[in-house]
Amino acid sequence: MSTRKPPADPEADPRVQAVFDDIRATRKTDFINNLWRALAFDAALLERTWGEVKALMATPTTLDPLTKELIYIAVSVANACSYCVHSHTAAARAKGLTDAQHGELMAIIALAAKTNHLVTALQVPVDPAFDAGAA
Amino acid sequence: MSTRKPPADPEADPRVQAVFDDIRATRKTDFINNLWRALAFDAALLERTWGEVKALMATPTTLDPLTKELIYIAVSVANACSYCVHSHTAAARAKGLTDAQHGELMAIIALAAKTNHLVTALQVPVDPAFDAGAA
Amino acid sequence: MSTRKPPADPEADPRVQAVFDDIRATRKTDFINNLWRALAFDAALLERTWGEVKALMATPTTLDPLTKELIYIAVSVANACSYCVHSHTAAARAKGLTDAQHGELMAIIALAAKTNHLVTALQVPVDPAFDAGAA
Amino acid sequence: MSTRKPPADPEADPRVQAVFDDIRATRKTDFINNLWRALAFDAALLERTWGEVKALMATPTTLDPLTKELIYIAVSVANACSYCVHSHTAAARAKGLTDAQHGELMAIIALAAKTNHLVTALQVPVDPAFDAGAA
Amino acid sequence: MSTRKPPADPEADPRVQAVFDDIRATRKTDFINNLWRALAFDAALLERTWGEVKALMATPTTLDPLTKELIYIAVSVANACSYCVHSHTAAARAKGLTDAQHGELMAIIALAAKTNHLVTALQVPVDPAFDAGAA
Amino acid sequence: MSTRKPPADPEADPRVQAVFDDIRATRKTDFINNLWRALAFDAALLERTWGEVKALMATPTTLDPLTKELIYIAVSVANACSYCVHSHTAAARAKGLTDAQHGELMAIIALAAKTNHLVTALQVPVDPAFDAGAA
Repeated sequence: MSTRKPPADPEADPRVQAVFDDIRATRKTDFINNLWRALAFDAALLERTWGEVKALMATPTTLDPLTKELIYIAVSVANACSYCVHSHTAAARAKGLTDAQHGELMAIIALAAKTNHLVTALQVPVDPAFDAGAA
Repeated sequence: MSTRKPPADPEADPRVQAVFDDIRATRKTDFINNLWRALAFDAALLERTWGEVKALMATPTTLDPLTKELIYIAVSVANACSYCVHSHTAAARAKGLTDAQHGELMAIIALAAKTNHLVTALQVPVDPAFDAGAA
Repeated sequence: MSTRKPPADPEADPRVQAVFDDIRATRKTDFINNLWRALAFDAALLERTWGEVKALMATPTTLDPLTKELIYIAVSVANACSYCVHSHTAAARAKGLTDAQHGELMAIIALAAKTNHLVTALQVPVDPAFDAGAA
Repeated sequence: MSTRKPPADPEADPRVQAVFDDIRATRKTDFINNLWRALAFDAALLERTWGEVKALMATPTTLDPLTKELIYIAVSVANACSYCVHSHTAAARAKGLTDAQHGELMAIIALAAKTNHLVTALQVPVDPAFDAGAA
Repeated sequence: MSTRKPPADPEADPRVQAVFDDIRATRKTDFINNLWRALAFDAALLERTWGEVKALMATPTTLDPLTKELIYIAVSVANACSYCVHSHTAAARAKGLTDAQHGELMAIIALAAKTNHLVTALQVPVDPAFDAGAA
Repeated sequence: MSTRKPPADPEADPRVQAVFDDIRATRKTDFINNLWRALAFDAALLERTWGEVKALMATPTTLDPLTKELIYIAVSVANACSYCVHSHTAAARAKGLTDAQHGELMAIIALAAKTNHLVTALQVPVDPAFDAGAA
């Protein structure tokens, strides 16, 4: 159940088709997941969003591909985005995430949430030593 | 300005002193940041929290130390914990985070937040292919 | 699946019936959505909540009705309230939201989330020029 | 630094004065904290908000006054509202919160945040036994 | 649909079995809810998490058992954790939560969220009187 | 205090200078607020972010400019981004937000937060009538 009906035949729009073709070529799969189908109602929004995802997540950069997925999962969990947690956990698995690493990811996310809430509850003042501008 | 006055002389309590000594030994520094001073009102809470942080963040595990800090920062940003963002960015710098990697981290956190909100706004249904139980 | 069973015959309580009647009259429909049924366990809470919604969202004020729904959707997305996103998107549609406007709403919510997270990650200090007290 | 300059002489408005008088009488103090001064720009919003706070938090109900403050603090921490954490911790102290109880509150909030994030990260399905509608 | 398949026979691992036995003994029931089954992939994480929950939530402390569940629910609602809201509402019911108390809990959580957002929208400055360090 | 020191002379980089020039020309002011100075460490991130903000917020589209700022504020409040609340409230004022409209915005954001939390606490099921795919 979604708030906007995805287009029945999204690739009838050549701009959508071009994005879907690029997703398939980049990921070497025929599978187009629901996020991209959902965004197909607006070719410009689809192009920009995929463009960002491709540039950051599917292109070699200074951080390795698996680390980038772990960061993405961490944000998605804290923002309570069920879909995003599912899709990026699947992506991390595809990029080699082991069971042990997944267990550690769970533990770090949980620990960060714990200290985030402790710090906010106690209103701990930031140490001056952490000021990047003072370096 | 905090919601609980930290003990004036926390190390008068030998359990607190033992934790502070372990923090100094583990991190090879005399600096005890405000989180630990703030938790010193309750030795048991301090011991458990430091115990978890040490075991996950200051002990070799399957994820490398820098990756673990990036995950911690990501959760802390999404939970809007200013103190935590400051302290873990400093920790990541100490573990070798480069300027370029920091820029990428910013971009990935921002992109994840963007797609988290898009997905929630559109209420995109989870693809059955992402079900770990189905494998 | 909810955490409290809604009353089987909510309108047996005359205070609940009066609220439901007012909802039907105000909205010119027989449809009472689940939020109001869920709140019917406590007539006072139901009355106060509907009273606020009616006064702000179903009464002419300085902001136009559609704008008010878009604000409501924006908060609901950021708070990850699936039900609220669904119900207020439907309300916005009923008040004339076009496909193009909906696409823009998606893009603005996503962009705001992106810069919210960037600003929190970088801990950007507030410009003194933004201080309303200084005007 | 706030986003709206509070009125310089809020009690020049008799409706605001009436609310401030009621706050002073209810709380048996001359102190009007900044939230109420900030809301004084709109007498109706001030009246409604104080009315709700008074009815729930300053009137005997089935939950005891201290428990109600602890619930309020818990929500405020999770919503990262620094002002609210400060003001309701002060209120809880005024209602008898001991140091030991405050320490427990910190630990429970932290633990809840931890399991909240674990559950979201693992996407644990709700047990049918928790369905209130099934009873 | 979860992001990690729970072990088919979790109690084949004696450490998991020991935790499950302790849950059953502590709660005086044969029911092991899905959170513990989901965590069974990592015996150490399961032991630590149950250990914390048991020590805080299932052991007499200075706060009474029902109050502790209400705090837990409050955090879980604000963090939008559907599973946690369900499981801790069921736990609160088991510890004696009445219908009237549940209605009040709903109202307080809702009011706290309202003033949290008002305060953040107005950026109300913290009153110096709330500074615990000044006492 | 920020987590990354902004460049001392950002416009020494011609790409940064081009963005700053465009901000000044678009907004018809010499004022460059701290967000853009903070992003100047990475010209590409600055260009993309300003490009999105300009296209959505400073270019005529189907939603009027003030409505777009109100949506932006609403998301920023719910995400607890102090800087963003300040900067977009100032922007809304510059685009004609009246005191009365600002008061309504406060009330709607607060009401949405209230019902968001009520719905999550009660776990109200989505009405089938809200399913966009069923239309």
